[in-house]
Amino acid sequence: MHTKRIACGAVLGLLAACMPAAETADPLPSWNEGAAKQAIVEFVARVTDPTNAEFIPDARRTAVFDNDGTLWAEQPTYVQLAFAIDRIKAMAPGHPEWQQEQPYAGIVSGDSTALAALTMHDVMQIVTATHSGMPTDEFRRLVSDWLETARHPRFDRPYTDLAYQPMLELLAFLRANEFRTYIVSGGGIDFMRAFTEDVYGIPPEQVVGSMGALAFEMRDSTPVLVKEPGIDFVDDGPGKPVGIERFIGRHPLAAVGNSDGDLQMLQYTAADPGSPLVMVVHHDDAQREWAYDRASSIGHLDLALDEARARNWTVVSMKDDWKVVFAFEVKTGSKGP
Amino acid sequence: MHTKRIACGAVLGLLAACMPAAETADPLPSWNEGAAKQAIVEFVARVTDPTNAEFIPDARRTAVFDNDGTLWAEQPTYVQLAFAIDRIKAMAPGHPEWQQEQPYAGIVSGDSTALAALTMHDVMQIVTATHSGMPTDEFRRLVSDWLETARHPRFDRPYTDLAYQPMLELLAFLRANEFRTYIVSGGGIDFMRAFTEDVYGIPPEQVVGSMGALAFEMRDSTPVLVKEPGIDFVDDGPGKPVGIERFIGRHPLAAVGNSDGDLQMLQYTAADPGSPLVMVVHHDDAQREWAYDRASSIGHLDLALDEARARNWTVVSMKDDWKVVFAFEVKTGSKGP
Repeated sequence: MHTKRIACGAVLGLLAACMPAAETADPLPSWNEGAAKQAIVEFVARVTDPTNAEFIPDARRTAVFDNDGTLWAEQPTYVQLAFAIDRIKAMAPGHPEWQQEQPYAGIVSGDSTALAALTMHDVMQIVTATHSGMPTDEFRRLVSDWLETARHPRFDRPYTDLAYQPMLELLAFLRANEFRTYIVSGGGIDFMRAFTEDVYGIPPEQVVGSMGALAFEMRDSTPVLVKEPGIDFVDDGPGKPVGIERFIGRHPLAAVGNSDGDLQMLQYTAADPGSPLVMVVHHDDAQREWAYDRASSIGHLDLALDEARARNWTVVSMKDDWKVVFAFEVKTGSKGP
Repeated sequence: MHTKRIACGAVLGLLAACMPAAETADPLPSWNEGAAKQAIVEFVARVTDPTNAEFIPDARRTAVFDNDGTLWAEQPTYVQLAFAIDRIKAMAPGHPEWQQEQPYAGIVSGDSTALAALTMHDVMQIVTATHSGMPTDEFRRLVSDWLETARHPRFDRPYTDLAYQPMLELLAFLRANEFRTYIVSGGGIDFMRAFTEDVYGIPPEQVVGSMGALAFEMRDSTPVLVKEPGIDFVDDGPGKPVGIERFIGRHPLAAVGNSDGDLQMLQYTAADPGSPLVMVVHHDDAQREWAYDRASSIGHLDLALDEARARNWTVVSMKDDWKVVFAFEVKTGSKGP
């Protein structure tokens, strides 16, 4: 027994020598050197070093990310709304009554003034018309199919190409350090689950989002889960910490958002007794992406920006902190539009 | 490079020789040889063998378990109800009005006839009185403290000692084969999360349960999640597949239950296009545990037993299939009461 144990120890030593020297490579190559990158690297070093007072065991390493405007672009409109609008157009031949009825008529005719004037009530109507009445797997397939053909109006690329490269690196860096990376988004959970695994490496069980009603039904002796009209849970604002507690049941050690809808999630994460990573992505790069905050209805960032500055949370300047913005810049070497 | 690669290949070979020969040890020592054990072992072999047509990649290996009556005992009353009753007694000094008011008066006076006559409406009142009005972490602490001192009336042991040893082995065997093991229970999510990690090795994020209302609040500038009166989600019957879709977003490959409240979860799992493991624990051992099914209000098993037999799901006989029943028998060598 002793002989075997010693031999195996030696084998493990040899194995370590065979491993690639991962720590010497920069895990965040798309981040410029600066306070934001330093905050990330120091946070991970702190919680993963067993000799540090703030060491956190693997099982408790949880990080939460907003999606729209945090992991991918949300301008000129939320991707999910672009999907809903395209679905209305695709469904219109089966709904002749929409020719006369607003908000459908304006969308079907492609009237950009009508689109710009959509109220929250209109949006809810559109979402209900396009996001209910079918099993969840059928809905996910509609989303996947759409994502394969739809193009972003400014960049003329699939929407999924507009994931932020620095955030993909941050997700991978956290996962390499045994974090579970969750999305906690106001977006629809079924919409997101159609692409988060492929695009972000985030599996369905780590996606928290807003939810419509869902019903268990037998169809031809086969059980299906059918999306129904009506909203069961809004995962936005104070709903985000509620979603975290309900779905994860653990206090996050890191949270990243970009709008006032993320404020309570950031506050909740900031209350961790250790030194959590609390981060706000600031869209200040009109050239490579967009510049917007307090005056924007999409990704409205006002109170959360003030609180981030007052409490020394990490504010990421897309312009200054990010060497590249979009995943496609790395994939193709292109520098955008 | 070539030299290094060859050397490392040799090291990996040596390492394999150093690994304990896990496959030769029986992963299910508390299961008697028989159809149930065979169904488990063959199921795991099928989905983990990359050369088998039914091979499932790690990421998709998901198993769902009911809790009460499936992972631990639910007689003579659900453990969560025993907790609620003890809480009513503990809280009674602060509620003098309960001396006159039912169902509280009967509970406070320890009247066993009153306890036996509790209606579903009474139970909801008791649960509301004991499960709301405090932050989730405070509630979990109450549950943990209670579990440390409360004793099961028949076995005079902590309730957590009444986890089923064969199910602990099944959970561990599935996890050793890269399954994520979820609880999907009609029990309260916050109640279960107080003990599932310690008792079953199931972390909070893999617990799906019924949920009360939850509110985000600032108390002394500290964000807290406060349990409020009212039920948001009942994770029972058709609610179980809904909970699975909402929390996990994947079709399970294995499901284990013991009552009609699990029927839709079993049907949903059985609809997997491969050969899923669908299992019903049958309480037929009055000597070592309890014998109950169609006539019992707790753990009522009628339709699900018929369907299990008609569709050749695996019915586990506690009497015939389990060599030992409770975890404490293994821990102490005792054979029960």
